[in-house]
Amino acid sequence: MKYLNQQEAINVDEELFNEYKFSVDQLMELAGLSCAHAINDCYGATVEKRKVLVCCGPGNNGGDGLVAARHLVLMNYEPHVYYPKRTQKVLFVNLQHQCESMGIAVSEDCPTLDVVNREFGLVVDALFGFSFKPPVREAFAPIMGVLEKTTVPIVSIDIPSGWHVEEGPQNETSIKPSCLISLTAPKMCAKHLANAKHYLGGRFVPPKLQEKYSMDLPTYAGNPVSVAFIIENSEDRIENNS
Amino acid sequence: MKYLNQQEAINVDEELFNEYKFSVDQLMELAGLSCAHAINDCYGATVEKRKVLVCCGPGNNGGDGLVAARHLVLMNYEPHVYYPKRTQKVLFVNLQHQCESMGIAVSEDCPTLDVVNREFGLVVDALFGFSFKPPVREAFAPIMGVLEKTTVPIVSIDIPSGWHVEEGPQNETSIKPSCLISLTAPKMCAKHLANAKHYLGGRFVPPKLQEKYSMDLPTYAGNPVSVAFIIENSEDRIENNS
Repeated sequence: MKYLNQQEAINVDEELFNEYKFSVDQLMELAGLSCAHAINDCYGATVEKRKVLVCCGPGNNGGDGLVAARHLVLMNYEPHVYYPKRTQKVLFVNLQHQCESMGIAVSEDCPTLDVVNREFGLVVDALFGFSFKPPVREAFAPIMGVLEKTTVPIVSIDIPSGWHVEEGPQNETSIKPSCLISLTAPKMCAKHLANAKHYLGGRFVPPKLQEKYSMDLPTYAGNPVSVAFIIENSEDRIENNS
Repeated sequence: MKYLNQQEAINVDEELFNEYKFSVDQLMELAGLSCAHAINDCYGATVEKRKVLVCCGPGNNGGDGLVAARHLVLMNYEPHVYYPKRTQKVLFVNLQHQCESMGIAVSEDCPTLDVVNREFGLVVDALFGFSFKPPVREAFAPIMGVLEKTTVPIVSIDIPSGWHVEEGPQNETSIKPSCLISLTAPKMCAKHLANAKHYLGGRFVPPKLQEKYSMDLPTYAGNPVSVAFIIENSEDRIENNS
């Protein structure tokens, strides 16, 4: 399977919107849904605490997190959203409203390391996506500090936040997700995963676009009803499941 | 499980958009995806011809059909869309474009009964939804005639077209779907299904809204990653699956 570089990821995204005329609402809904399914597939049987901290950044990666949080409610999780830098775009205002209407607390206050370690069974990292370029903005320094030090398993959406999209971790303190959910197609940084499960989510890529970028994505064959599935397990347990 | 009357179905729909601030794009994507999954669950193992005729009406039921057709491509079906009465709403223009970009033929010409019986393995009825009131408009008389007579199995989305939303079939010639996919919650007409499988799709209803309408929907428990699942099989084979 091809691992996209940053410019390819940006180009694929632009084609989906400009050439294929998908709306952000559509693809974000499919992406967030697939993240919720991957999270449940990865942790549903093992995680003891149902409280999940979903950390949402200011862009589309944060939007994916808001959608995932909403679907997690219907899968019997208790998501709490940390969402410090909000946009006034209608879609994002509505995504937040949908979360709050489902009973999800959406906060601007960064939780402490102690609270995260004590109360949450899982952290979803939806801070920065494939358009991220280091360094991390100052407003996100506190939550990045928490994610770098927490003992709670981290699920990163598309890109482990703070990682270079192509080169991976920037230093020894970079976050170490135990699960990565690549959206559309994996990005190059995914090759630097260690001791982690790697899912592919958001199965909506038109065949012609797959061909154009030589994505070589797996098909639905044999796994027809999943929207997310595991493609690699660097814990050395390679498996295929729903 | 509660079966909604027509006014309740309209009220639930309005609340999802007005109170919960979902966009049509979001819910139509989830609905259409769940239809594709239900169709594959119901027929994936048995249907020989992969060509599927998707009949799309002028409103949101037709939009669900366009979304389902697109997802069916990624599940190795060959959908052909019959879409005679189109709206100029941006979402619908884009949904049609997405289908065509996936290689799906979208036609305004009503196929003959002979062609349908000979070429297609399945017909998806996405003509009219929960806001339908008889009689059928003249423009849809030809396709209704085909659906009433075809020997190919019919999957109806939300409401078997031509049926009264509460009272069911209007006469002996009314279409006889072999599968119904109820969206959000079943409507009263579903009680008149005979020799059919009945799925529930579109699992996105906020808990408070479920309570308000006493919907008593099944939870994800034990079936966590499905977006559609069978709730009844009037062929007398009751089962639960993905």
